[in-house]
Amino acid sequence: MRRLKTIEWVGNTVRIIDQTKLPVRLVYEEISSIAVMYDAIKQLRVRGAPAIGIAAAFGLYLGIREFEYDPEDKAAFMAELSRQAAYLGSSRPTAVNLFWALKRMKACAEKEIASAGAGRIKDRLLMEAQRILQEDRETCKAIGKYGFELLKGYSTILTHCNAGGLATSEYGTALAPVYVGKEEGKTFHVYADETRPLLQGARITAFELHEAGIPVTLICDNMAAMVMAQHKIDAVIVGADRIAANGDTVNKIGTYGVALLAKAHGLPFFVAAPFSTFDMSIQNGSTIPIEERGEDEDPRIRHADGSCGHSGL
Amino acid sequence: MRRLKTIEWVGNTVRIIDQTKLPVRLVYEEISSIAVMYDAIKQLRVRGAPAIGIAAAFGLYLGIREFEYDPEDKAAFMAELSRQAAYLGSSRPTAVNLFWALKRMKACAEKEIASAGAGRIKDRLLMEAQRILQEDRETCKAIGKYGFELLKGYSTILTHCNAGGLATSEYGTALAPVYVGKEEGKTFHVYADETRPLLQGARITAFELHEAGIPVTLICDNMAAMVMAQHKIDAVIVGADRIAANGDTVNKIGTYGVALLAKAHGLPFFVAAPFSTFDMSIQNGSTIPIEERGEDEDPRIRHADGSCGHSGL
Repeated sequence: MRRLKTIEWVGNTVRIIDQTKLPVRLVYEEISSIAVMYDAIKQLRVRGAPAIGIAAAFGLYLGIREFEYDPEDKAAFMAELSRQAAYLGSSRPTAVNLFWALKRMKACAEKEIASAGAGRIKDRLLMEAQRILQEDRETCKAIGKYGFELLKGYSTILTHCNAGGLATSEYGTALAPVYVGKEEGKTFHVYADETRPLLQGARITAFELHEAGIPVTLICDNMAAMVMAQHKIDAVIVGADRIAANGDTVNKIGTYGVALLAKAHGLPFFVAAPFSTFDMSIQNGSTIPIEERGEDEDPRIRHADGSCGHSGL
Repeated sequence: MRRLKTIEWVGNTVRIIDQTKLPVRLVYEEISSIAVMYDAIKQLRVRGAPAIGIAAAFGLYLGIREFEYDPEDKAAFMAELSRQAAYLGSSRPTAVNLFWALKRMKACAEKEIASAGAGRIKDRLLMEAQRILQEDRETCKAIGKYGFELLKGYSTILTHCNAGGLATSEYGTALAPVYVGKEEGKTFHVYADETRPLLQGARITAFELHEAGIPVTLICDNMAAMVMAQHKIDAVIVGADRIAANGDTVNKIGTYGVALLAKAHGLPFFVAAPFSTFDMSIQNGSTIPIEERGEDEDPRIRHADGSCGHSGL
């Protein structure tokens, strides 16, 4: 099973897979400045809520590593860190992992300064980013194990968008049970919604499952109801952009529709996400900000008229 | 309100709008042979169940008009007519209007031969095709009037695929109430599903409504549930490829999903179709043949894997 490295720290740069080039070309990009990382997140070269969190953590380190400061002036360092974190945080509004990672990096800096001063703060921040990456690997693997327990009685799984390895560091969230299943000798057949308008299902989910040797059937979003009616789907599993305190879940446009269709066909519908995707400060889904991207974004299909707003993760 | 002529008899050829070029270019094509008409139907240059019926009627006349026969040998003429009708009938399997029109043309020939012989049979068949076209105009207008009575209490309408003027000779079926409404001073706002994979909603419905000065918002198919939840839709109306004796309706892939979503949101869901779309020989929808088109058909979006079967009307 070929496992792609979505995001890695290599030497002194971050290496990502440029996901806008998939599936036609597998292109790696080395990022060594916060401005390039901001663009990479905004333009979806790195995407998927957990991967965005990791990218933001490394991006913040890249932003601060050249910053010259007086080790005694802790306030100046923290002010600069906050300024750069706010800049990165403006790249994508919906993914809570982005804010979670930036907050965690700031908390790490505060703790380090309080205990050891600002002398080695940059090294400490790099370590924290690497720890976030490592924890993501472990978290996704755990999601895979728990999820596989839930799903192992089923054979065919429908998923929407991409919450696979390419949305995280390695195993993914929604697809983690499928990868764990493969390791344990159970091969699921995955139906992937193509996920208009940006086709993350067609370009990314189908690609990564195919790379991993897992059978995948790509369908247009509007076919989901029909394949359910034809008894081709046993269960649905998706990732999440953000989950409110009451469990309300925000995810890629179309997820709500798939959930209604699953209900209409009596199919179980699962959301797979790490704790970092929960936002306990938000009581319910109605107040989660929903990203609506520009009308001119999709170069493949020209729209004759009207809006095509969506959460772009 | 600019009304496009989807299909017309001009001089001694059939003129159609090549719908595969829309909305980028409005190209008319003159067709003077049955073989070109077969390709035009199969390749969706002319599409929409009622328009296909009209095209088939004219196509059959084009096929027979050069046929040399002995006016006394009525059986030879009918055999050739049947052969050509079977050929045209193999172009698209789902649209019953295709078979309806071919059957009507054959019945017309039989009646003419029985009453007046085969001498002027070709002229009679051309007249019959023109009558089918004229009746379609009147039928669609009537659908528009009845439909407007049903819909006039609503303001925003969702439709899937294209069952507008470009699917018929003029008014359309699902969109006829919208056009009649416009004539009577009521402007609906139409949400058009883009209708993957071939984008009839994006390319054709949005185009023709825009041409007619009717406000239209194009959405991706997977957005329908969300715009319903946002109370942006008052009612759904679609066309039909074929309707069984019990009312089961076959229409473009995605229609079933939209119907379930409408139900989940308590929205009325209408099917607009002429009598020629009813197939009383079929008891229920389970035995209606569903067209599945080739995997390599869509040049705009490459699929990474798997099937994309759909009824292509």
